[in-house]
Amino acid sequence: MSQYRTFTVADAVEYARQYGQMPDPQALVSADEIGDGNLNLVFKIRDRARISRVIVKQALPYVRCVGESWPLTLDRARIEAETLLIHGALCSHHTVRVLHHDPELAVMVQEDLSDHHIWRSELMKGHYYPQAVGQLAEYLAQTLFHTSDFYQAAQAKKAEVSRFTNPELCQITEDLFFTDPYHDHERNQFDDVLLPHVTVLRKDTALKLAVAGLKHRFLSKAEALLHGDIHSGSIFVAEGRLKAIDAEFGFYGPIGFDVGTALGNLLLNYCGLPGLLGPREATDCREQRLLDVRELWLTFAGRFLSLCQQHSRDVTLATPGYAEQFLQQVWQDAVGYGGTELIRRTIGLAHVADLDSIADPEMRAECQRSALNLGRTLIVNAAQVEHVDALLARIRQHG
Amino acid sequence: MSQYRTFTVADAVEYARQYGQMPDPQALVSADEIGDGNLNLVFKIRDRARISRVIVKQALPYVRCVGESWPLTLDRARIEAETLLIHGALCSHHTVRVLHHDPELAVMVQEDLSDHHIWRSELMKGHYYPQAVGQLAEYLAQTLFHTSDFYQAAQAKKAEVSRFTNPELCQITEDLFFTDPYHDHERNQFDDVLLPHVTVLRKDTALKLAVAGLKHRFLSKAEALLHGDIHSGSIFVAEGRLKAIDAEFGFYGPIGFDVGTALGNLLLNYCGLPGLLGPREATDCREQRLLDVRELWLTFAGRFLSLCQQHSRDVTLATPGYAEQFLQQVWQDAVGYGGTELIRRTIGLAHVADLDSIADPEMRAECQRSALNLGRTLIVNAAQVEHVDALLARIRQHG
Repeated sequence: MSQYRTFTVADAVEYARQYGQMPDPQALVSADEIGDGNLNLVFKIRDRARISRVIVKQALPYVRCVGESWPLTLDRARIEAETLLIHGALCSHHTVRVLHHDPELAVMVQEDLSDHHIWRSELMKGHYYPQAVGQLAEYLAQTLFHTSDFYQAAQAKKAEVSRFTNPELCQITEDLFFTDPYHDHERNQFDDVLLPHVTVLRKDTALKLAVAGLKHRFLSKAEALLHGDIHSGSIFVAEGRLKAIDAEFGFYGPIGFDVGTALGNLLLNYCGLPGLLGPREATDCREQRLLDVRELWLTFAGRFLSLCQQHSRDVTLATPGYAEQFLQQVWQDAVGYGGTELIRRTIGLAHVADLDSIADPEMRAECQRSALNLGRTLIVNAAQVEHVDALLARIRQHG
Repeated sequence: MSQYRTFTVADAVEYARQYGQMPDPQALVSADEIGDGNLNLVFKIRDRARISRVIVKQALPYVRCVGESWPLTLDRARIEAETLLIHGALCSHHTVRVLHHDPELAVMVQEDLSDHHIWRSELMKGHYYPQAVGQLAEYLAQTLFHTSDFYQAAQAKKAEVSRFTNPELCQITEDLFFTDPYHDHERNQFDDVLLPHVTVLRKDTALKLAVAGLKHRFLSKAEALLHGDIHSGSIFVAEGRLKAIDAEFGFYGPIGFDVGTALGNLLLNYCGLPGLLGPREATDCREQRLLDVRELWLTFAGRFLSLCQQHSRDVTLATPGYAEQFLQQVWQDAVGYGGTELIRRTIGLAHVADLDSIADPEMRAECQRSALNLGRTLIVNAAQVEHVDALLARIRQHG
């Protein structure tokens, strides 16, 4: 770690020249630091025409949005790069390309995706990318199947579980998803108007019991190498294209967590749309979001199942019918984890623009309450909602 | 590993003098190699009066009962010693005491238990130790609770999961418990008379589906630091005393696996008793075994629950009612894993004397068929057998 130093703009340009795999490295002449996330420095490295050509991302030894008082391991940069390299090998179309990484500098050079947009922003504007959901489902199925016990040899997988042990980043998830929102904690953030709702939620025994189960499974179920934070802000889209980025939360966890995070973000958008576009104008978009939820699950499950049927290497897990049975558990986990994403993004530390950027305070509060209600419904009923169509029926009924 | 050499009797004596923590080390003068297990050298180190004072156990770099053609990691000696040290710190009364260990030599010095008996032999003779089942339940509750997510901090537990990654020994379990018995594999061993029964079993879809789920959970559920092989031959008993030994299969796995292995061995004995003692003479002993099964589960569950209620450190898992809900899953896992132990000990590679030592071939086959049937019943009905009394009712009905 001795080699670590925080990059300046000049360092980033120099590093990109060296490791950016550019045919004309000297063309790289300037950089902007554009990290708007919570944790890292992100440099866009530009050529003389100010065109962004490559990205240099460096982890800081603390949580950027909080400051040096919250130190955070630099090892997350290694985990992010190694997760993306594995996911990229399994699903190159939909994983950002890592050109170089250095664990000691906690730095990674990755392809530039300036011709893409952050999916969340597009969803908020009501811009529809017809292939995005199917591509995300493909990404999830390929990466999760091939790192699962269906495909990986048991001994190799155990070594990978150790390699991707990610205690500090996992703890952030453990705290922010499963603990803080259900307790009075200083990290929580929400408007006073939600307090009565939050108070009811914290006394909800059925809800807290189900959340305990979800947290316990997050802590103990090493099913596959997850992205670990696959929300709509970790996904770039363009016409016919989709790329996952930001895999520093990568670890071996329950498959339903990745699927549920993705579903949860579609539903956060569903809840926010009336405030973002206006209640009437949002109708079609909201209906599309529900169809997206349906497509995401059905495409993921279909693809995962067909991979199991064609490529399972574990002779026992290949027993006909077992993959279907397992996917039913993944579905129930996904519904529950999706619910925790809805709740923690509404009243926890890290919010989403789908809700927070709603200008009208009353409308914002209404959308937030709707997210909390839907989150609770998902979590408490996860075991009973046996099929995605039953989920959609509940959501439509719920309003 | 360069330092490794296979111990001679003289080496073992010298080592015991050095590390046996004896007040009079020079009194140790001779040793017998008594390893009757499948994997290791075990030396009893004796004094001038030929009294055994201390045990030296060394791992061989291959499976002893097969030979050098099946190499096996020496790291299992480190894992065994470190598992026993942790279990000993958590439950000193019921864990064999480790006096010294050396990972490079793959050697461990442990307390002598010559005044104890192997529990399996006692169970086979119908000798009853009224405190043994309760003590085993206490051992399981203490070791499994304190290494679980209820008690261990998440970051510390993740480091422990890596430290106790035990791929080669786990693979033995994965193969011998969950794979071989359900396929035609050369490692399987059973009399021809069982072939029709085995053939039916291998075509049993419901059974194979349930076994796939059990294997998958064994591969992916890191709930606590298991003993990993807690059968009645890994347990020493004496009047009022019980000690677990042989923890080289230690790893972070599903709690129900340890509990189920223990239950399964009581039931193997239940199935073998008519052949060991005579059908009529066995009646009382068999009834006692069923009461043992009941006591083992109820004492374990009661103790685990009370530890959860008093000592849970994870504020989310401490939600009132969650431990009960979790224990219901442990119960269902335990019933299933118990069933796999019954089947693999009857038709797989490693058998038990409770069945194999029955002299009369017809009686032996009858007891073995009974073990297979009971094993199947447990595995297939695990999710439906909601309480230990329902299990006992099924067993009594089953014969």
